[in-house]
Amino acid sequence: MSEAVAPAKDEVLRTDVLIIGAGPVGLFAAFEAGVIGLSCHIVDALEQVGGQCIELYPDKPIFDIPAVPVCTARQLIDRLMEQCKPFAPQIHLGERVMRVERIEEAHRWKVTTDRGLVFDTAAVLLSAGNGAFVPQRVGLPEAQALEGRSVHYAVRQRAMFADRRIVVAGGGDSALDWALALRDQAKRVTLVHRRNAFRAADATVQEMQRAVAAGQMDLVIGTIATLNAADGALQSIDIKTLGGDTTIEADHLVALYGLVADLGPIAGWGLDVRAGRVAVDTSYYETSVPGIFGVGDIATYPNKQKLILSGFHEASLALRKAYGYAFPDKKRVHVHSSYDAALSERILGTSVT
Amino acid sequence: MSEAVAPAKDEVLRTDVLIIGAGPVGLFAAFEAGVIGLSCHIVDALEQVGGQCIELYPDKPIFDIPAVPVCTARQLIDRLMEQCKPFAPQIHLGERVMRVERIEEAHRWKVTTDRGLVFDTAAVLLSAGNGAFVPQRVGLPEAQALEGRSVHYAVRQRAMFADRRIVVAGGGDSALDWALALRDQAKRVTLVHRRNAFRAADATVQEMQRAVAAGQMDLVIGTIATLNAADGALQSIDIKTLGGDTTIEADHLVALYGLVADLGPIAGWGLDVRAGRVAVDTSYYETSVPGIFGVGDIATYPNKQKLILSGFHEASLALRKAYGYAFPDKKRVHVHSSYDAALSERILGTSVT
Repeated sequence: MSEAVAPAKDEVLRTDVLIIGAGPVGLFAAFEAGVIGLSCHIVDALEQVGGQCIELYPDKPIFDIPAVPVCTARQLIDRLMEQCKPFAPQIHLGERVMRVERIEEAHRWKVTTDRGLVFDTAAVLLSAGNGAFVPQRVGLPEAQALEGRSVHYAVRQRAMFADRRIVVAGGGDSALDWALALRDQAKRVTLVHRRNAFRAADATVQEMQRAVAAGQMDLVIGTIATLNAADGALQSIDIKTLGGDTTIEADHLVALYGLVADLGPIAGWGLDVRAGRVAVDTSYYETSVPGIFGVGDIATYPNKQKLILSGFHEASLALRKAYGYAFPDKKRVHVHSSYDAALSERILGTSVT
Repeated sequence: MSEAVAPAKDEVLRTDVLIIGAGPVGLFAAFEAGVIGLSCHIVDALEQVGGQCIELYPDKPIFDIPAVPVCTARQLIDRLMEQCKPFAPQIHLGERVMRVERIEEAHRWKVTTDRGLVFDTAAVLLSAGNGAFVPQRVGLPEAQALEGRSVHYAVRQRAMFADRRIVVAGGGDSALDWALALRDQAKRVTLVHRRNAFRAADATVQEMQRAVAAGQMDLVIGTIATLNAADGALQSIDIKTLGGDTTIEADHLVALYGLVADLGPIAGWGLDVRAGRVAVDTSYYETSVPGIFGVGDIATYPNKQKLILSGFHEASLALRKAYGYAFPDKKRVHVHSSYDAALSERILGTSVT
């Protein structure tokens, strides 16, 4: 796999198809694009390929991938990475697509990510699953106004926590790791989790318990009920516990509840969005905007089933129409993979006849 | 796999879905039927499972089965047989479906084979590939454009071969008979067969060998690699032989490789048939006759691609509508295979959590 080299600022990456989402369907689309002769780039907001398969259930067995009687989600992604390898798609991770704009005179699309990548593409294949994964927010109305100043969903600048009272909320690896990491520089760190059981590595849980026992940090089992603020800054947090309610003085809340999927900026691209899904036709899996296709879980149509195998089919058909956008004057002739000597040579590195 | 025991004459086999065609799509449909809780039987006119995969290219590599970077057609069938095994579908081989009749009062179908099997089924899933039998084509991309003018699959007008250089390809009775029959009027006849063994009557083989020995015709043992044409007419044929490559000047190629499937009796079932394909909608892959579905190569719709992976998707969606015919009063709830404990137990023989 050719890991993308960071392109120079201002460089525009020109491609036939831009695949948004590096889950199983996006990875297979990269293979299929190669088979039919389309160049592609893949972008994904996550830092790793695999989408929901890797984020949500990497070690769960999957039974309904045709001709793969059983594999884990992680193995599925490994297999798909191997399959697209001969076409060396460039994969850009940790990049969230923000804008998709029509380049009218060229009948192409300009696509921009949050970190400044710019693509010039003939077609956009949206295989973004449930949308981009974003941090699960604190479900309290007062949290939003404090976001960025006192309420945080990631630790970006550790310096701002120096000598401050920090509440870290959550029960997974991120929450425990950051509570432990901040305990020395912060004035006080309190880890808040709704139950006395953690979805973190055993060693991390034990380290956290030792730190609490040694008085280096606090642990409160309960749920956050109210954020008390004054002048736009957090002052304290009310917490409901089994033993009653308690209030902890706090300057910052770092909420690390894990990721949820969100349609995000896609909702602003002018597509026909219905209940968080993008409506597509069932012959080309094209959205209401010609040149933008929706495949896999993000797509909806009558009798849509959220099956990975459906995404494979949808991507294969969408790319055939995308070919027409990339090469308006060429007619593609379908050759079965078994009889395509050039394909065979590319994949096997040797001619099969 | 439960090989079907010959049912007693007059016994009617009752099932939720009858799958016609035991190729890759039919076999996956049997798995998927099991997953969603439908019983099924499979019938196929051939004496073995695998359809075109086994009949036409058992040892060819296939590259575009998602998550299976490469496998032979035979391995694909083996994998699909393994996958449907937990549901033990009954497979009836060497049975050609002749009639499909509506049982009006019951909203079900009576299906009869040429050897007298009778099924009573809620839905029919037609996964019959190309149907019954037509000549096998030359597996070279350039052959199609020459078909009719320089490439022939039957001898209809002998006159066109007079004083021309003819290559007859194949190793069966038809190939040998026509090579012998054309040798007098043609300028030269060359019989090309991939090995020095023939599926023809001994007397015919001996006659051909005598004709070759007498210089009345040529025999080349090898495989046709390239058809060289100019102005839409065949000029010569490159042939790979064990001794190296050779080129034979030729005006016509008569390829008599045997027969492959054709729609056959299906054409008489009242379906909307277009150019040998059965028209279906793209949400349920249902034909113009409610309760009869068409999936895989036999189906046609706008932008239909003859990809095995498309057949998998089509079968999965069709079966969800078929479920409504089998259980009109039940609502099926979709559970991802990874989270379906009963399915997991059935497939793995043990609960996975």
